[in-house]
Amino acid sequence: MSMNSFGHLFRVTTWGESHGPALGATVDGCPPGVPLTPEMIQVWLDKRKPGQNKYTTQRREADEVRILSGVFEGKTTGTPIQLMIENTDQRSKDYGDIAEKFRPGHADITYWQKYGIRDYRGGGRSSARETAARVAAGGVAREAIKMLAPDLKIIGYMVQMGEHKTAKRDLDQIGQNPFWVPDADAAELWATYLDGLRKSGSSVGAMIEIVAKGAPAGLGAPIYAKLDTDLAAAMMSINAVKGVEIGAGMDAAMLTGEANADEISMEPDGPVYSSNHAGGILGGISTGQDVVVRFAVKPTSSILTTRKTITKSGEDTEIITKGRHDPCVGIRAVPVGEAMMACVILDHLLLHRGQIGANRGQIG
Amino acid sequence: MSMNSFGHLFRVTTWGESHGPALGATVDGCPPGVPLTPEMIQVWLDKRKPGQNKYTTQRREADEVRILSGVFEGKTTGTPIQLMIENTDQRSKDYGDIAEKFRPGHADITYWQKYGIRDYRGGGRSSARETAARVAAGGVAREAIKMLAPDLKIIGYMVQMGEHKTAKRDLDQIGQNPFWVPDADAAELWATYLDGLRKSGSSVGAMIEIVAKGAPAGLGAPIYAKLDTDLAAAMMSINAVKGVEIGAGMDAAMLTGEANADEISMEPDGPVYSSNHAGGILGGISTGQDVVVRFAVKPTSSILTTRKTITKSGEDTEIITKGRHDPCVGIRAVPVGEAMMACVILDHLLLHRGQIGANRGQIG
Amino acid sequence: MSMNSFGHLFRVTTWGESHGPALGATVDGCPPGVPLTPEMIQVWLDKRKPGQNKYTTQRREADEVRILSGVFEGKTTGTPIQLMIENTDQRSKDYGDIAEKFRPGHADITYWQKYGIRDYRGGGRSSARETAARVAAGGVAREAIKMLAPDLKIIGYMVQMGEHKTAKRDLDQIGQNPFWVPDADAAELWATYLDGLRKSGSSVGAMIEIVAKGAPAGLGAPIYAKLDTDLAAAMMSINAVKGVEIGAGMDAAMLTGEANADEISMEPDGPVYSSNHAGGILGGISTGQDVVVRFAVKPTSSILTTRKTITKSGEDTEIITKGRHDPCVGIRAVPVGEAMMACVILDHLLLHRGQIGANRGQIG
Amino acid sequence: MSMNSFGHLFRVTTWGESHGPALGATVDGCPPGVPLTPEMIQVWLDKRKPGQNKYTTQRREADEVRILSGVFEGKTTGTPIQLMIENTDQRSKDYGDIAEKFRPGHADITYWQKYGIRDYRGGGRSSARETAARVAAGGVAREAIKMLAPDLKIIGYMVQMGEHKTAKRDLDQIGQNPFWVPDADAAELWATYLDGLRKSGSSVGAMIEIVAKGAPAGLGAPIYAKLDTDLAAAMMSINAVKGVEIGAGMDAAMLTGEANADEISMEPDGPVYSSNHAGGILGGISTGQDVVVRFAVKPTSSILTTRKTITKSGEDTEIITKGRHDPCVGIRAVPVGEAMMACVILDHLLLHRGQIGANRGQIG
Repeated sequence: MSMNSFGHLFRVTTWGESHGPALGATVDGCPPGVPLTPEMIQVWLDKRKPGQNKYTTQRREADEVRILSGVFEGKTTGTPIQLMIENTDQRSKDYGDIAEKFRPGHADITYWQKYGIRDYRGGGRSSARETAARVAAGGVAREAIKMLAPDLKIIGYMVQMGEHKTAKRDLDQIGQNPFWVPDADAAELWATYLDGLRKSGSSVGAMIEIVAKGAPAGLGAPIYAKLDTDLAAAMMSINAVKGVEIGAGMDAAMLTGEANADEISMEPDGPVYSSNHAGGILGGISTGQDVVVRFAVKPTSSILTTRKTITKSGEDTEIITKGRHDPCVGIRAVPVGEAMMACVILDHLLLHRGQIGANRGQIG
Repeated sequence: MSMNSFGHLFRVTTWGESHGPALGATVDGCPPGVPLTPEMIQVWLDKRKPGQNKYTTQRREADEVRILSGVFEGKTTGTPIQLMIENTDQRSKDYGDIAEKFRPGHADITYWQKYGIRDYRGGGRSSARETAARVAAGGVAREAIKMLAPDLKIIGYMVQMGEHKTAKRDLDQIGQNPFWVPDADAAELWATYLDGLRKSGSSVGAMIEIVAKGAPAGLGAPIYAKLDTDLAAAMMSINAVKGVEIGAGMDAAMLTGEANADEISMEPDGPVYSSNHAGGILGGISTGQDVVVRFAVKPTSSILTTRKTITKSGEDTEIITKGRHDPCVGIRAVPVGEAMMACVILDHLLLHRGQIGANRGQIG
Repeated sequence: MSMNSFGHLFRVTTWGESHGPALGATVDGCPPGVPLTPEMIQVWLDKRKPGQNKYTTQRREADEVRILSGVFEGKTTGTPIQLMIENTDQRSKDYGDIAEKFRPGHADITYWQKYGIRDYRGGGRSSARETAARVAAGGVAREAIKMLAPDLKIIGYMVQMGEHKTAKRDLDQIGQNPFWVPDADAAELWATYLDGLRKSGSSVGAMIEIVAKGAPAGLGAPIYAKLDTDLAAAMMSINAVKGVEIGAGMDAAMLTGEANADEISMEPDGPVYSSNHAGGILGGISTGQDVVVRFAVKPTSSILTTRKTITKSGEDTEIITKGRHDPCVGIRAVPVGEAMMACVILDHLLLHRGQIGANRGQIG
Repeated sequence: MSMNSFGHLFRVTTWGESHGPALGATVDGCPPGVPLTPEMIQVWLDKRKPGQNKYTTQRREADEVRILSGVFEGKTTGTPIQLMIENTDQRSKDYGDIAEKFRPGHADITYWQKYGIRDYRGGGRSSARETAARVAAGGVAREAIKMLAPDLKIIGYMVQMGEHKTAKRDLDQIGQNPFWVPDADAAELWATYLDGLRKSGSSVGAMIEIVAKGAPAGLGAPIYAKLDTDLAAAMMSINAVKGVEIGAGMDAAMLTGEANADEISMEPDGPVYSSNHAGGILGGISTGQDVVVRFAVKPTSSILTTRKTITKSGEDTEIITKGRHDPCVGIRAVPVGEAMMACVILDHLLLHRGQIGANRGQIG
């Protein structure tokens, strides 16, 4: 496969399967001198951890991270940081049925078609459990960002669950509800809605928004490592994501030029924009506005309704996917999206230092 | 910058500016033995070429491609293929105004902030003229695909212009109208609509859909070079694109698991699916169904309405962007999207050969 | 640093420090379906393991490898293989002296100048202990090669220790002596010679030769990933290596064209060559002859003689490097060189499959 | 092939064949703001140009470089720089004999075995003519280095021709003789020697040394993009190179630890070393001393002596390679080696800026 890494200079390789002995991330390219402890990473893993409330899978995992290399006397050394999370809840169970049948909407069939290997233990490598490793790597990225760009903040939240959207961005509310939604009313409504879905064994999709506030102007490497290009790849690589948009996003298709282009004026601190349809990115380079990305997460295909499928031997059959699953996997995608944003932003902070010439352009 | 290449094994580097002497693509990794002539590439460049009707910019460019290397006696040799397009219409004009002011919605300001260079000649490297090089590279990719996967077809078309969407996919209609829309009624309606916008000096966004039919199951390299990840990056890297989606895309956010997951059954030729919400990709790997990607193109910011902006010296001012522009740049994005799809698909066909083990999984 | 990986499709990232909790290799791109157990890897680690005789460092390490991911039911799955080796002999000792002084000939001073970090515990990341991870990865590569090219064999041995060279290639002798030298007489001579050096607290350099027998013609990717280019990089990246040569190597500088070029004739099994000055590589591509690479290993700089050096605070001082070291580190470089050869060869076997066109050239 | 690029952030892709319409280099990642004209590059191409004296091939090529992109108003913009050299002397001649036979010591046979393509026109892509593109790219690198590290100088020269070595390093002599040898006596001796070889239609190998003076401490990215690793790859990728060494190089194999390790003392300007066996590199990172690399160039295999070989159809035959060739190709390898050194050093200057943390280590 050989494609389990991402990033240009801050380079993360994740490894491990859903039910193997451990999983983790090999983080290469973190600058030296960044204060780093397991606790700084653990806080983000805890945010993603399953089994925290009735809306997420009841699989119990401590998701405790160990730092095996790259840190000496409390600081990064510039050498690879190995982050390991041991799998503790590898519940021994009868996989017989799943081992023979392909679950619709899952990667079982394509992994089989590509690799000729059927790791039926919870999806193996294609399980969303892989995202724990991303979150750990993102924790490292956040600490490095603190050193390089102390004012930069990365915040993620859910803005749509099924047909219920919210336009509110009350950031104080995000931590107050299990959906990370920045809207107290939506939180209440969604709780009832999702409870119904959960009880009926169904599932639903979601839309997540991730914002980087305080990113300096100049991040992004045209033409093929634009900031938005890298963010699109980062988010699309997350399990179950089917769409990614920047700023006005898909709505840009219906706007006129007058409605879309953000006007510019000058303030003492630098250029300001009348709006942010651009999502903080012009020509692939950050403007200094908020960098805004949204992505759609499909509903998990593990539901209690009987579905038609086929077996490895090519026979038509039916399947019900029992087990411990999330009625809305989008909830746990929030910290994952934040982690990917952190990794991409750090990568471009580092890249930018290697790319600039003698003089950056000054305005005024 | 050093990031003007894309692809893993089929690796394309584009070069050149809007108003420099020439632009082109260095195509590395094309398999040897592929029949290739300039004419095979020219047909796609002609599809993208400006000035073909009143709906696209009146800039006149022959866009004639020359093959400078990599082909011997009518066939590729496996060495880099240099494709060069000379710029002929580098109209000498007074750029003075634009040279000092940043055009809202354009990359002028961010290129200045990053590089300290102001190539005011039509946007320089950030101009959509760069996409001609992509289309040329895509022409090479199509010929190589013919050799490796003769049944594979790549088709692009427009499915939305401003607020006007179409759900029709009458592929025979695509070549019958200037918008590449697969719907005769829409073509008529859009003609009137766009004519009005053009006359008023306005512009509008669009949505493009690109389909790869006949792609074999097994393409895509988890975890971070999934087929959908690479397609997202490829499309998002196109000028003016603000969102990318696969299959059900953004709508997946509002679906339930029952509505979303495509059921599977067995036919003599292999597995078939009841629907294609997955867009032909599960777990980042192609299923054998149509691979379906859509992207939103924002309206060009070059419009005749006066807009607020600032100068290089940091003064508030206003600007009207006169010149030769497209009222709906989405039209010319269709062949660009096709070219990117061709490059990504070929890349994964090659990668797949390097990745598979002794036995691929057989069903039945 | 972000540069702890090597390989194109078979991609190995090593991690870990000399005295950290563990070290290892993240192996990405191994084909699926390769039988793999820890024992298959352990055999090579045991070959490299310190403390096996009086000629290598007396540090005691079990160097026991664990496979944390990428293998299911005894076979590789195509997903990343995480190989972990725990450090057991992290002898607690007083590093005070070394922590302040830079050891001449070691990387202490340059790591400090680059990273501002002083991991004085046995050299940290710059320790040759990192090569254990390479040997583990090489063990995986060997098993994959068995599947893809069953007749291919990789053999390494020492051909020079200090001023003592041997021209003999009696491969049966390699395993019969502690120096892996293919010459029984040399083995005897070297034993006496090295014993003298060891007792006097001195050290000496060595020359290693690694041969790949049975590699098919066609491996190597011109122009900048030629087989010899990749081998040169692989070997030069090993600690203490100061030179690499292919075939006739440095001696090619003194040859005439008549003496150097290997003549070709035809045999039933294919082309044969009158000699192998090319070292099995022409134009960066393997010919089907033995691929022959040699590299020079400098003597360890950890010796009992007092040496002039400076402290971190910039004062002139002296140092004697006591501790557990190898009088001839070249001995343990043999399995490391073999491992690098295995990784490079496998990488090119995979790459070749992704690069070839419809027809490879046939002779006759 | 897809492997025609080198460099991490300063990324050069060469393209073109010996007898195609043109060849060149796509240079990506040059910082913006570097003054650059064709003349600055031409001076280095002229140094490498064939036909300058009786010791190099009599092929006549103007080797005139054009800059097609990436420069605006006399300065680099940070976008890709396309350098094109048109082939003018594509002498139409009868290749019939060579088209059927494989020239011993050339890449004809391996290119055929790998690609199934026989570009018999002077070796096609495998011709040393490709190095003109490297020299052009090196010219760009030199100008960028001037901006980033004004005191850094790169100097190449020949230190061995056949069995004639010189230990002198009289740098003023380099430009005074056609062999770029830093020794007036050697120049005289070699002239007679090479004249004899030339007249007899023979050829001979050579050893080249390239030095970077004034490179700052801290360049190089452990573990697998060490400065010496990257230099080894860069030099080994040059046509006809069979060995590369750093500092003491191959001789390190015969040294003791006392003789090899360079002692350190402190001077007002920083650390100084008693000798330079390390070649300016410790642990893969530059020390601030001269960076010294040497490489061996084999004699050209195009000689007037009859040689045994085979045909494409597998028949034994003989060949005499007539034509315009160099009795000592090593001469023209000097500017090529310099160019590769310039590219690698610039690459690491850029990389270093992207890698360092908040504090670099200070001594004293």
